[in-house]
Amino acid sequence: MSDPVLFYFDFSSPYGYFAAHKIDETVADFGRRVTWKPIMLGAAMKETGNRPLTDQPIKGDYCRRDWDRLARYMKVPWTMPDKFPITTLAAARAFYWLDDDDPALARKFAGAAFHAYFGLGQDITESGAVADIAEPLGVGREALLSAVQDPAIKERLKIETTKALKAGVFGSPFVVIDGEPFWGSDRLWVIRRWLKSGGW
Amino acid sequence: MSDPVLFYFDFSSPYGYFAAHKIDETVADFGRRVTWKPIMLGAAMKETGNRPLTDQPIKGDYCRRDWDRLARYMKVPWTMPDKFPITTLAAARAFYWLDDDDPALARKFAGAAFHAYFGLGQDITESGAVADIAEPLGVGREALLSAVQDPAIKERLKIETTKALKAGVFGSPFVVIDGEPFWGSDRLWVIRRWLKSGGW
Repeated sequence: MSDPVLFYFDFSSPYGYFAAHKIDETVADFGRRVTWKPIMLGAAMKETGNRPLTDQPIKGDYCRRDWDRLARYMKVPWTMPDKFPITTLAAARAFYWLDDDDPALARKFAGAAFHAYFGLGQDITESGAVADIAEPLGVGREALLSAVQDPAIKERLKIETTKALKAGVFGSPFVVIDGEPFWGSDRLWVIRRWLKSGGW
Repeated sequence: MSDPVLFYFDFSSPYGYFAAHKIDETVADFGRRVTWKPIMLGAAMKETGNRPLTDQPIKGDYCRRDWDRLARYMKVPWTMPDKFPITTLAAARAFYWLDDDDPALARKFAGAAFHAYFGLGQDITESGAVADIAEPLGVGREALLSAVQDPAIKERLKIETTKALKAGVFGSPFVVIDGEPFWGSDRLWVIRRWLKSGGW
């Protein structure tokens, strides 16, 4: 069986949110499955010297317009959060904690966390907000609040982020297929063609 | 008749080069024509705080790989120039000088300049190199060398660049359709859908 397609993202990334709606089906059409990998994009930005999109003059305004437009095109909920960008440590740690036991549940949680932040515009920085998102999926509140403070889980997220940077990941979303890197939600069409033809 | 689609680019932009191969046919399918507008991307980068892609750690390596890959996919010639990025004042001035009298000739010249720089990897910084590109198209060498030093032509390029920045252009390629902005060569598919549906 082929290796899974690696889907790197930060829960605070609008383009990550849009790609998250499409990545599973995009690669499933070619018999491939996806491993979701939240990372801390801030660490990547330190390496590249990049800044959050909305902090960039002119480009920030364009991106806000582009997110509204993409949401309308894709017919997905969109609310620009008042607090943006945010630190998504708690959400990413919760993801890996769930992922160890139940990847399908972690995947559901990731969708719910993205929906809370960008679909509804809720602040998901704090552990309590993350527990609110996970609880309806059957995740114990106290267990989650404890897990996101667990040194082993904290370390796991650091390792995943460091490994991603070493693999060349510098943005969100970032997809790696059999070692081939694809950056950006606008490249899903390239991914589709790449998988269809087996590369070129 | 509809207003022309505005295609902003810098002759030193790889993604501008790729989009240049497709923009005319992309919009012609919807009965629209294109006005090509070279600008000085360096001026836009000053406003946004962005840097040339190859100066950015990790991202620069990705882009080099992406350009090779896009060229193979699109089956267009590609040679990463030894000198990159370059100042494209001479080429852009020559373009506007030609454009005043003969937009079709200016369009041909733009294609030839892009081909020389990114197809063949030749340095097109100097006026002499630009004259070498224009001469086979029937453009007098001395007239061109004189035009690119003409204060009126110099001013024209400044005005075009300033107007572009005011219109929100911050990258290359950048396409504006009836006031709607689209950034990046990966967005040609969005442009196609936008024109097909009349927006959304």
